[in-house]
Amino acid sequence: MITSPDNDRLKTIRKLARKSWRSKLGLFIAEGEDLVDAADAADWAAEFVLRAGEDVEPELLAGASSLGSGSRVIGVYAQRWAEPGGEPVSVYLHGVEDPGNVGTIIRSAHALAGARVVLGPGCADPWSPKAVRASMGSIFALPPARGDTPAGRVVAFDAAGGVSLADADLSPPLTLALGAERAGLPPGLADAAVRIPVAADSLNVAMAATVALHETANRMAADG
Amino acid sequence: MITSPDNDRLKTIRKLARKSWRSKLGLFIAEGEDLVDAADAADWAAEFVLRAGEDVEPELLAGASSLGSGSRVIGVYAQRWAEPGGEPVSVYLHGVEDPGNVGTIIRSAHALAGARVVLGPGCADPWSPKAVRASMGSIFALPPARGDTPAGRVVAFDAAGGVSLADADLSPPLTLALGAERAGLPPGLADAAVRIPVAADSLNVAMAATVALHETANRMAADG
Repeated sequence: MITSPDNDRLKTIRKLARKSWRSKLGLFIAEGEDLVDAADAADWAAEFVLRAGEDVEPELLAGASSLGSGSRVIGVYAQRWAEPGGEPVSVYLHGVEDPGNVGTIIRSAHALAGARVVLGPGCADPWSPKAVRASMGSIFALPPARGDTPAGRVVAFDAAGGVSLADADLSPPLTLALGAERAGLPPGLADAAVRIPVAADSLNVAMAATVALHETANRMAADG
Repeated sequence: MITSPDNDRLKTIRKLARKSWRSKLGLFIAEGEDLVDAADAADWAAEFVLRAGEDVEPELLAGASSLGSGSRVIGVYAQRWAEPGGEPVSVYLHGVEDPGNVGTIIRSAHALAGARVVLGPGCADPWSPKAVRASMGSIFALPPARGDTPAGRVVAFDAAGGVSLADADLSPPLTLALGAERAGLPPGLADAAVRIPVAADSLNVAMAATVALHETANRMAADG
């Protein structure tokens, strides 16, 4: 039973709240029973798991938590970037800085279309505690890839796009490309982009990705 | 120019970070130029607006911000609950405790289907700074209503539902009902619920609402 905050494992957990340490160590943390279960379900072996009351005093584990929610269990795992490509549907993100949005899109992509997320320049670290939490188990089931540009046939989504969603060719294999809310996609990618019909100004990028994925999955089901 | 943190307007802004004060005063805050512009666009008059460097010393305004993002402008507004009903499409939420999800769903409902959100028991306060921020302008354009039960023809969405989305009758007028991720909808509502086809465990409630709204809007467009 760990009874000191100076314990090496607790120190590692605290370090992993920071991106610089995550990159240096190649590790990340998953907080909470659901996420640790999801890692198990995906056969993703932990470096170590600490459980409050079993391995460590509950206050010490809560104090090491990044989410401030007094986690009862924290697992430490090795980062495993995937290679882009291979799935019928991929999602390419450009400049999506919010870790909650990155995690949510990893979750939606997995749930709606079994789609891999490829993170382009300027995206949040998907191994941050907030992104991992937002992804729920999906970061283990379908870990993200990195890429400087989207691969294969690309269908770009942009609020200023000239092609309506109804007219878009969403047949796989394809990569759905989305940019951050304000900045959008870079000019080359935004050309001939698809616009999701909306009454108000815009959707947030996670909602836009969800609509794009649902529509793609819908048409695959209709064609299949 | 306000130069003291004891100024009454700054005190009011700090109080409005708390739900008890928001309910007592019937007020809420909108932080940032985009939200204050959205209020103007919706003809929603402010009680007062403070701008850094014009009305108040920037450090004092940043110190009063709830979002910790050093807002340059904060507006204070009267809460205006809408009455449920009237729109072709409504969204009823039950037990959605996360203010970011409540705000995001208000935004998606407005953007995708011009739909009013009705907040049932156990939902987060939509006038909290996080919910207002997540809604972007939509909380001003289509403010939420409250209700103990969904009204009109209800189509419930639940991960354990027996009706597939493809078979659901989504013709308006209707209310799309969704519950929190874990607890779902209460038994009476969850009967004959619609299930969104997903590969993974579930979607978060904001994603599920977005899919339901997009599908509803799609079919309205196809029928119209």
